[in-house]
Order: sequence, then C-alpha cells, then structure tokens
Amino acid sequence: MKLYSAPVEDILFSLNAAVGSQAPSHWDAAQCADILGHFANFVESEIAPLDEPGDEQGCALSADGVRMPDGFKAAYTALAHGGWQGLTAPELYGGMDQNALVAAAVSEVFAGANHSMQMVCNLVPGAISTLLRYGTKDQQQTWVPRLAAGVALSTMCLTEPDAGSDLSRIRTQARVDVHGWRIHGEKIFISGGDQDLSEDILHLVLARSGEPDSGVKGLSLFICSKSESGDSIKVSRIERKLGLHASPTCQLTFTDAPAQLIGDEGDGLKAMFTLMNHARIDVSLQGVAHAARACDIANSYAMQRSQGRKVDGAPAMLSDHADVRRMLDEQRSLSLGARCMAHITLVELVKNDRPALVDFLTPVCKVFCTEAGIRSADLGIQILGGYGYISEYRVSQTWRDARITAIYEGANGIHEAAIATRGLRTLGGRGADEFDELITELTSNNKSVCALQDRWRFERDEIMKLDDPSAHAHAFAQLTCELFFQAAWVRLNSVSDDVEISRLLRGVLLRA
Amino acid sequence: MKLYSAPVEDILFSLNAAVGSQAPSHWDAAQCADILGHFANFVESEIAPLDEPGDEQGCALSADGVRMPDGFKAAYTALAHGGWQGLTAPELYGGMDQNALVAAAVSEVFAGANHSMQMVCNLVPGAISTLLRYGTKDQQQTWVPRLAAGVALSTMCLTEPDAGSDLSRIRTQARVDVHGWRIHGEKIFISGGDQDLSEDILHLVLARSGEPDSGVKGLSLFICSKSESGDSIKVSRIERKLGLHASPTCQLTFTDAPAQLIGDEGDGLKAMFTLMNHARIDVSLQGVAHAARACDIANSYAMQRSQGRKVDGAPAMLSDHADVRRMLDEQRSLSLGARCMAHITLVELVKNDRPALVDFLTPVCKVFCTEAGIRSADLGIQILGGYGYISEYRVSQTWRDARITAIYEGANGIHEAAIATRGLRTLGGRGADEFDELITELTSNNKSVCALQDRWRFERDEIMKLDDPSAHAHAFAQLTCELFFQAAWVRLNSVSDDVEISRLLRGVLLRA
Repeated sequence: MKLYSAPVEDILFSLNAAVGSQAPSHWDAAQCADILGHFANFVESEIAPLDEPGDEQGCALSADGVRMPDGFKAAYTALAHGGWQGLTAPELYGGMDQNALVAAAVSEVFAGANHSMQMVCNLVPGAISTLLRYGTKDQQQTWVPRLAAGVALSTMCLTEPDAGSDLSRIRTQARVDVHGWRIHGEKIFISGGDQDLSEDILHLVLARSGEPDSGVKGLSLFICSKSESGDSIKVSRIERKLGLHASPTCQLTFTDAPAQLIGDEGDGLKAMFTLMNHARIDVSLQGVAHAARACDIANSYAMQRSQGRKVDGAPAMLSDHADVRRMLDEQRSLSLGARCMAHITLVELVKNDRPALVDFLTPVCKVFCTEAGIRSADLGIQILGGYGYISEYRVSQTWRDARITAIYEGANGIHEAAIATRGLRTLGGRGADEFDELITELTSNNKSVCALQDRWRFERDEIMKLDDPSAHAHAFAQLTCELFFQAAWVRLNSVSDDVEISRLLRGVLLRA
Repeated sequence: MKLYSAPVEDILFSLNAAVGSQAPSHWDAAQCADILGHFANFVESEIAPLDEPGDEQGCALSADGVRMPDGFKAAYTALAHGGWQGLTAPELYGGMDQNALVAAAVSEVFAGANHSMQMVCNLVPGAISTLLRYGTKDQQQTWVPRLAAGVALSTMCLTEPDAGSDLSRIRTQARVDVHGWRIHGEKIFISGGDQDLSEDILHLVLARSGEPDSGVKGLSLFICSKSESGDSIKVSRIERKLGLHASPTCQLTFTDAPAQLIGDEGDGLKAMFTLMNHARIDVSLQGVAHAARACDIANSYAMQRSQGRKVDGAPAMLSDHADVRRMLDEQRSLSLGARCMAHITLVELVKNDRPALVDFLTPVCKVFCTEAGIRSADLGIQILGGYGYISEYRVSQTWRDARITAIYEGANGIHEAAIATRGLRTLGGRGADEFDELITELTSNNKSVCALQDRWRFERDEIMKLDDPSAHAHAFAQLTCELFFQAAWVRLNSVSDDVEISRLLRGVLLRA
C-alpha cells in the first residue's frame, strides 16, 4: 500500500502557472509554500493514516448521536489546535485571513489524505463567507470565532426526500412563534449532520418561509445550532454508501427547532449560493485530489511490478508497457490540468475583476475536475489489475470516495445545463465572452487550441439559436471543459522547462 | 429497490438478430425460449434475492474452509437439481446437450441475477469442454457426469503472486513421484477456490512441468480434486474486494497435491485456452448482464421520480429531462448492442465455418461488453444521483461487481494488444479479413457504417506497417469495437419494426 504523499510541488507549480504574470494583490507565493508545507506534514502523519481504517469502520449511530471512527476526534482536535479551521477567517475573529488560493492548496491536500474527514470539516470556510456576507453583526460575532477555532463545525441542509436537484420542491417549514423562528421538516443526505468531533454544530438550513406553492422564492436561509436545539434536531438515520464511509450522511428531523434567519426572507437561495459556490470549487479540488492520489498509487505500483520483457529481451516493469504508459499519462495529464483549471478559476475569484467569468468557470471546473478524479481512479484500478480490485492497495477506495463528487453540490448534468443556458445568456453572455478571452490569454494563439476554440465559438452560436438547448448541453459542456483543459495545459507548459511536461502537453493536444 | 427481472424478450430478440437468415443446424428458437423462460422464473425467485444479502454478508474463511453466505447452498442445490449445471454437457454424461447460444442466454440471466454465484458455478461448461477435448476417456467418465450433476464445481488456477497477465512467470511446480504427478506452489485470485456448495471441487491447474526457465512452453495443465487432495490443498486466505463479495477469491497453497495431467505435457497453455476462451465469452455476457441490469434499475427509477417541470409547466418525471434521457438511451444502446455482438460471435462459434473470425471477435467482445457493463452501471449511479450512491438502490453494487470484468480473464489492455497484433497477423490476417466481411454482411452497405469501416481499413493498414503497434493498440481496438457495435445495431434494427429501436440506432450511428 502506498502511503499518502501530498503533491506539494505540483500544487505550487500549478498555482504559479495560474497566477501568471499578474499576481493578485496580497499574493505571497513563499508564504503559501510555507503554509502548505506545514499542513502537508501534519496531514501525512496525523490525518492520512486514518483514511483506510475510517473507511472500514465507518460511522455509527446510537441514541447519543453519530460516533465517528476511532482516532478521528484526536486528529480533529489537533487540526483545530493548529488553527487550520480558521485559515480563511478574518484575523479579527481569530483566523489566519488567508485567501482562496492558499485555502485551495490546503483543501486539496486535506481531501487527498482523507476525503471523509475533509467533508465533515470543510463546509466551515463557506459558512464563514455566508455569515460575513449575510449575517448580522451579532451572528458574525457569535459564530465566526467558534467556527475558526474549531469549537463548531457546520453543515449545509438542502436536500429533502423529494427535493434533490429540484429545490423548488422543498417542504421544510419555517414559522415564527413568540420565541422567534422555528424549523419543522426532514432533511436528507446531510454530510456531518451529526458527529462527535466538535462541541457544537452550526446547521445552515434552507426552509420554506413562504406559502407551500411559493417555489424557490419562498425559501429562506436559517441557522440552527446543535447546542441550542435540545431534542428538536434528531438524526433519524445515517446512510450506507458506496464510499465516504467515515463521513456521516445524515437524515435530520427538525421538530420546531429554534432558528435564526440569515439574510432576507425569501433570499434563501441567493444566500445558499454563496455557500454552494464555495463548496463547488472545493468539490472540484476533491476531484483533483483523487486524480492525483490515484496517479500516485498507480505510478508507484507500475514502477515496482515486474511484468514481461522489453523488446530487447530485458525484464520489464509494468510501467514499461505502452498501454500502461498511456493510462499513467492520462492520469497525470488529468491531475495537473484539472488542478490548474481550478487554480485559474480561483485566481479570477481572488482578483475579482471578472465575476461573470468566475460564474462561468465554476461549473466547468466542477464537471471536469470531478470526472477527472473518477476517471483517474478508474484507470488506477485498471493499471493495478487484480490488485486494484482487492481492497488492500486502496485505489478502489479512491474511486468509491471520488464517485460522489459528480453527484453532490449539483449533479454534473445540472451544471452542464447551466453552462449551456445561464452560462451563455446571463449579462448578455459576458461570462462566455470572458471565457473566450481567457482561452486566448492562456494560450497565446497556440494553433491546436485555436482550432478547438473556433469549434467552440461555432457551437456556442449554434446553441444560442435554440429555444431549448438541453439535449445539446452535455456535448457543449464537455467541449467547453476540453477547451479549458487544453488551454490550462498550454499555460502549465509555458511556465515549465520540464521535458516531461511538454511531452504530456503533446498528448493533451492530440485528445479527440 | 428494483427486483431483478430477466431481460428474456431482449435476449430472444438479439439471438434472432444474430442468427439472421442462416440459422446454425440444430438451432431451435422455440426450445431456447422455453428453456430461458424456465430458467428466468427459477432465477428471479431463488437466486436473485440472494444477491444483495450475499454482497453484505460476504464469504468467510474458517479452519473448515470457505463458508458461502446464507441461502447460497440451498439455492445451489435447487440449481443442480434442475439440471442447469449440465446444460451443455453431452446427454451421454447426463447433460442437456444444449449449444452455446442457449448457454449464453442462460448464463447472462444467471450473471444478472447474481454475478457472485454465477462466478462460482460457471466455470463448469468450460471445464467440461476442456475435459472432452483434452481429457482421457477415464477422466471424462469420472468428471463430466459429476460436473453435469452439480456434485462437483470447478476452478481455473492460473494466477500466482508474481504471474498475472504474464503467465511465463508461473512457478508452481509439477513433479512426478511413484504415485504420479504432484503439484507444489501457490495460486492466487482463484474464484471459488473453496466453497461449501458442492461435494467436490475439480481444480484445473496450470503448473510448470519443465525447467524453471522454460517459459510458457514448460507449462502443463493438471486436474486436482478437493476430495482426493486431503490436506495438500489449503486455502491460505480469501481477498477483501471492491465487489463480488459472495464469490470467494482464494489463495490456494498446493503442497505436493496429487494431480493428473490433462492433455500433453508442455501443452498446458493450449489446453488452458479452451477453458479461457469459453470464459472470455462468458465474461462478455457478464458485462451485458450488468449493462442491462443497470439500465433496468435506472429506467424504472427515472420513470417514477418526480423532478422539475416540462416546458409546458406540467410536472415532469426524471426521465423527461433531456440529459437523463441521453444517459438512459446510452445504457439501452450499450446493453442491446453489446449483447448482440456476443451473440453474433457465438453464432459463428456454433456454425464453426470461420474459426479465425471467432478468434478475432472474442477479445473484441471481451473489451466492448465489459466496458459497456461498467459504463452502464456508472450512468445508472449518475441517473439515480444521491440514491445511486447509497447502497439501497443496488446500482452501486452492479458497478462494483461489473468492474472486475475488465480485469479478469485477461485485462482489457492485453486483449486490445492481441487485437492489434495476433488479430491482424495470424493466418495472414484471415480473422481480420473475415471481420471486414462480417461487417458488410451485417450492414448491407449502410452508408454511415461504411465510412467507419473505411476508416477501420485504413487504420488496419497503418497498424500493419508498424514493428511495434503497442502504443496504438488501444485506439485501434476501440475503433474495432465501435465498428462491430454499430454494425450489430444495424442488424438489430433490420429485424425489428420498433420505432424505439430505429430511434436508438440513429443515436448509435452518430457516436463519435
């Protein structure tokens, strides 16, 4: 079994490529490297070793709530003690005030080491953003320091038994009584809906404050805390799942649970999107983390496994075989390219000059990076063969854990539809125009990418002619992903003098 | 959860299409339908219900050997009692003497209902073929009736810790002493290496009767029986795996186990290929079974799940959404097309006019059908979304069970290399020439397939110019698969007047 090794150099290389010649203000590459190095050391020794036993043991539900696998609480305590939960929180509230690029580097390493634990911990930065943007001063002062210190973790309570991708069907009610707001209803698939890591849990709950038939306009966002809810929030079950066994996926029953409105009444979806957009880029990084981890496992296996002979008759390693080389190259290309796509998007987010572009790129990253993670893990299984299918070498766990990323935070099909509809039409298509500019900036008219870019422009025009582009959304979104992927690779190559990178770029540009 | 429903009509439709206008002698479609109907009823009520609990409970290893999950022994006894283990065995030995087409229909349904149990039972037809072809009269008379009656099950013992895809590295020794042959060594990944279903187990063991450095020419095939081996064959471990939890994957230690040579000394690989070629078509059918099962689960879910609204504002079902429709269509196209490819190959096998064509088609089916099964299961997970990721709806089990099919019986990369090397060169390329003819026979010059066929011919010529085509084998094999798939679809459509079939054909012909 290959121990987890954080891809620190690759991450710094990619950040450097993504930042390019015009760094965002306050970008400090040396500080980022320093922080990432510290985090990688901590995670490799304290968090990663829990990934396999956590998968085997899973979470348990008793009358006292959810019990996490052995060792998770101690590791979480060390994580919180190190201040990592406050990485992006303002210093005013006890945080480190780091930007989204540093957070991305840290988050990817966390997910690669232990996706389950990262799931439970990593809604906090999004919750902090949501509080800072929509919360009252009082809500901010109460919750941000507790989240930053790790006293509380947070959840995102959206899905209901009959409302998954379609949030207009949400039925959980929010009513006012003499003491304030009360939440009543049932939420499912709530990651970290309960756990025994943190003292408290802050639930961000989307509920219907309007009439039953008020659609998404009748939804508001609320905060409920575990500590103040007494018995009014109960875990009614935890799911048995394909993967992420150490991340408790809870069904939560709210019985007139006390709540506070966050943001304006009826603005629930808008407020939720702050949280979700953060989560979506984070999910992209989970995909990247799995792609890189599967590549690392497969590469180290293939370099050490004797298999057959070379053309000259000398004993060969598995990695010497052309077909295995092809699969390893694809894994590596996907890992580096997907990461750079996410980093480029985050650079735009941090710079904040082209918000429409960030909106356009976010679903593109979500789709491409999550599929890259799953594909790379699948290739890893294939490269290891029978050893990939048995549990021991772990790459099958990588696949099982990765598989959810194409489903949660908006199923990929929903994002693909968004790319082909809102992505092309909002603000007169500004996001898509800026995407087109970005491709040119990244590639400096690389001939091969230009051809693909021309095809993309043509298809974009075709899509715009349709009243209902939904039947073509998948193909168009995949084309968009591919264009961004190839452009990111051209950028990576432009900041590197490594012959291996230019060899991989040639393969990327030949992709169908 | 969707109960297993055998795709009897689809199978008969496909057999009819594959048989075409020139049926093999002894082909009796009505009798096949009758047998399949009986088997489907039996399997739906007795075998399929054990699939999920078998996956959860798994197999256990104790000092007494392997214990199968609850209910498996009773179901196996009923299966053997029904005579199903002797389906292809000669009547002389108590079998039903049915041909490979009937066996394929039955085998697919068995695999779809319970792949794990089918794995343990379904090496028997291959073992019978091997005995009939290479065994002595005495070996045949001893073993074929026992296998046909279900008194014994059989295994195929090839892989060793350092010899997977590369059989020249096999180190298990075969030596002669005063009592006859003895086998000494360690075999891994032996499906059904032990179990408590049958009274006896017949192991077919590939071992080195020649010098240590004699390569594949020093390998011979042996039979060892559990009942005669006493303590000389031991299960040293069973593997924890991604899927097939109810199929015990054993490590077997042979300590001077008594054995009989089957076939000539040094001809082990040749004899083994009889067994393996049978197994490979059977694995293709496992892929088909998973493709069809995942399609059935996803389709029934998508038809019943409310989601969003139609363009006219009426409430929509999940299956009304274009992107879900796209995925369901792909599942269905893959299921029907892959099945027909396997059936066409089996018709050629039964007719026995073009053996080189059968050799060419076998790896093409193995690659395409297994990948179709995995892809369809993956699409099924995506269609069900969060419900696909949790265990309850079973489609994730379909994926986990299907995933091995691209690895065992020769990893798909090995088959792809074979298509691009032996497939094009053996007998001066006769198999490939006959494949080219077959495509024409199937498609009657359908314009769209003709274009693909021309491309295939061009690529074939290019590959033939190369000394080492290994770097291009994957792309060429995938092209070959795609051509056969599209041609099989044209044939399916030619025997159908269902508008749904012609709609799906249009989608298939538009595939990239």
